[in-house]
Amino acid sequence: MSVESAKSRLEQLLGPRLKFSRAELEQHGQNESIFPVTPPDAVAYPAGSDEVAAIVEICSAEACPIIAWGAGTSLEGHALAFQGGITVDMSLMNKVLELNEDDLNVVVQPGITRKQLEAELRHSGLFFPIDPGADATLGGMAATRASGTTAVRYGTLRDNVLALEVVLAGGKTIRTGTRARKSSAGYDLTALFVGSEGTLGIITELTLRLYAQPEAISAATCAFADVASCVDAVIEIIQLGLPVARLELMDTAMMRGLNRWDKSLDLAEQPHLFMEFHGSDSAVREHSKTAGEIVSDHGGSEFSWATKMEDRNRLWKARHDAYYAAKAMRPDCRVLTTDACVPISQLATAIMETVEDIEASPLEGPIVGHVGDGNFHTALLIDPESADEVAAAKQIQANINRRALRLGGTITGEHGVGIGKKSFMLQEHGNAWDIMSAIKRALDPENVLNPGKVVRLN
Amino acid sequence: MSVESAKSRLEQLLGPRLKFSRAELEQHGQNESIFPVTPPDAVAYPAGSDEVAAIVEICSAEACPIIAWGAGTSLEGHALAFQGGITVDMSLMNKVLELNEDDLNVVVQPGITRKQLEAELRHSGLFFPIDPGADATLGGMAATRASGTTAVRYGTLRDNVLALEVVLAGGKTIRTGTRARKSSAGYDLTALFVGSEGTLGIITELTLRLYAQPEAISAATCAFADVASCVDAVIEIIQLGLPVARLELMDTAMMRGLNRWDKSLDLAEQPHLFMEFHGSDSAVREHSKTAGEIVSDHGGSEFSWATKMEDRNRLWKARHDAYYAAKAMRPDCRVLTTDACVPISQLATAIMETVEDIEASPLEGPIVGHVGDGNFHTALLIDPESADEVAAAKQIQANINRRALRLGGTITGEHGVGIGKKSFMLQEHGNAWDIMSAIKRALDPENVLNPGKVVRLN
Repeated sequence: MSVESAKSRLEQLLGPRLKFSRAELEQHGQNESIFPVTPPDAVAYPAGSDEVAAIVEICSAEACPIIAWGAGTSLEGHALAFQGGITVDMSLMNKVLELNEDDLNVVVQPGITRKQLEAELRHSGLFFPIDPGADATLGGMAATRASGTTAVRYGTLRDNVLALEVVLAGGKTIRTGTRARKSSAGYDLTALFVGSEGTLGIITELTLRLYAQPEAISAATCAFADVASCVDAVIEIIQLGLPVARLELMDTAMMRGLNRWDKSLDLAEQPHLFMEFHGSDSAVREHSKTAGEIVSDHGGSEFSWATKMEDRNRLWKARHDAYYAAKAMRPDCRVLTTDACVPISQLATAIMETVEDIEASPLEGPIVGHVGDGNFHTALLIDPESADEVAAAKQIQANINRRALRLGGTITGEHGVGIGKKSFMLQEHGNAWDIMSAIKRALDPENVLNPGKVVRLN
Repeated sequence: MSVESAKSRLEQLLGPRLKFSRAELEQHGQNESIFPVTPPDAVAYPAGSDEVAAIVEICSAEACPIIAWGAGTSLEGHALAFQGGITVDMSLMNKVLELNEDDLNVVVQPGITRKQLEAELRHSGLFFPIDPGADATLGGMAATRASGTTAVRYGTLRDNVLALEVVLAGGKTIRTGTRARKSSAGYDLTALFVGSEGTLGIITELTLRLYAQPEAISAATCAFADVASCVDAVIEIIQLGLPVARLELMDTAMMRGLNRWDKSLDLAEQPHLFMEFHGSDSAVREHSKTAGEIVSDHGGSEFSWATKMEDRNRLWKARHDAYYAAKAMRPDCRVLTTDACVPISQLATAIMETVEDIEASPLEGPIVGHVGDGNFHTALLIDPESADEVAAAKQIQANINRRALRLGGTITGEHGVGIGKKSFMLQEHGNAWDIMSAIKRALDPENVLNPGKVVRLN
């Protein structure tokens, strides 16, 4: 029973689709965070669900850790092989299996990325709304309960997965959920696996909700004198129940970064809201008019409209690239990204106190946020060789997390726990964290599935 | 270790709030289903979360079953004491603890009913949308993952509970979730307890999402020549993505029952859609115009409008009373209610084959449905003394459930499993049902929490 023995059995199963080259291992030890490169012992490329089940069966028997790998864009070290083992790269399992246009759903393999799915749906008149910044895989997005700019209207991955196929520790495959839009047939296993970060099972198929393309889409930007008035406008828009489809904040530092990243943008280097409205022509007109009045009440500028699809796409591409734009602001830096999410009434406090923290530190930390959800990120730009900077960033992160909890919120709105936020789980959940551990023990008693992440096992 | 010993310890704890009278026990053995009266050994009336924890601690130590009781309106025997034990009646725990108007949420105790909550929110400009037919408690609604007429727009209880306080087997209390609108901080325990029917823990507090009252609300009814064209109109409305707030079907038998139940209604005794639109004035106008065109394409009548609040309330009260209206159609009958939910493209097949089954049987079975979700109910009216009628109803139910699964749906859209649908769980979930059992064993190893429901334990 060993990783070595697992490797030789997996090689029999997969032949050249089990890889050991140093480049391959290092590539699967990289991540978008401040963790060091942590390569696995081997990388498996399964061609289908059955092979995933066979891999998990072998690794379970050999007590060899198994880590699912999507696009490698997660921010908390979710997919790093801290205890060694086999990384299961889902890139060959990237097909749309079934598009049910009449039922507004689609069945996909976990390795398909959100941009691939977007391309597949282009001519259907339907779309899948969830859009994290990175071009993540749908399996990875489900595993971290991801969201993005549209959650304020369409919810998160939690609200948009109807059903899953999951391979459990030991290698058995189950199906959770159905293609019906709701069910009360027992425990909500779909919701349990969504957000479990590969620690309870490996997702091998997803049935996703789709939406009819709205008749009209309008995007607008507007600038504010300061972050506080920007946030106040957001709070009023949400409290009014205005059905915005996107409501994003960028602070001055972030706007500077975006202008540098995409020189065609050329927006004022002041705090901004990027907004989008979906609906019928008249609804979009009406909602954007109301939003414009609120913005104006808070001293915001006139809306600058992006009505043409190419302008809209450029705008949102810039927003999606915010992480990379921030990273590009300082050569060779690493980024520690925070992800607090608070009740909307506490958003101004949460952001303003964070701004004070950053200003009092030696670091740059542009702020962006899905503020309609009460969720915001700071991208703390650090020289990873500087112990002082790393310590300063970790202090700011700890302050942000503690503040989010004090204000009735959560340490992570959409990035997940991985290894990076584990030390805050007890503060957020208290003894409920033990219940997560109990579930982990029940479903994966040998702790082979992404060990060391999310839960603590004594 | 015994029920008797639990009773005497609970009497010390609760004094006169532990009740044993025959009337009390029988009342808590009643249910809205075809199950016989099944009284518990005693009924406890806790005054707060701490008392619930103390009750559960005592009962756990004494291996005495514990069954949470809301309004006693569940339809599958969820709250019946088939193995005896203590029923925990939540009626004293019916307060609004905290109304956070700015954050659009409210913290309530589990014993508050949906109509009590509605009354409490009346002057806030906010509302909680979920509305099962019965005036159920919010604790009960969460425990069964209930929904109602508005799920097509606002989702189910699953989508509208932000956080819970739960007492676990053994008596420990945990908190799941926060007041933030989203989180990816580990396993979604809130979603796990919602729909667990009191088998994993007792819900003692709920944080619910609220919504701003829409600027305009319009309700309309329209009649169709037959159920098939009615369903076809529904399918087209949903596939178009039209944001209806309610979309309800009643067949001819149900309309007859409703007219008899509320003589002021006086609607044509033909299949009907009851619809509602929420939004701005112009959005409501626009959406109802589009819906009217679709209805007309399928041979439906002109809309009959209920724009005044009192007319609307009468209309929806009648719809909510459909179960009681159906029951009143046959003196002294009991009702076996089915609850299939299918993908929208399969709704016509599911309903038409059900109509054939009912017509071929000796039973009356009015049909109502939250058809926008693909969910419909048949209320099979039976003489509980007639073995033939009971057998005929169970046969129809079994056909409906098997058909729902064949069509890619679920045996229960919103009523839950209880004891009534347990025999279909293996068919719906296959080996995923074992995972539910594994979770039950992990969280309630002594099986004291609502034993015998939802899962099987070998």
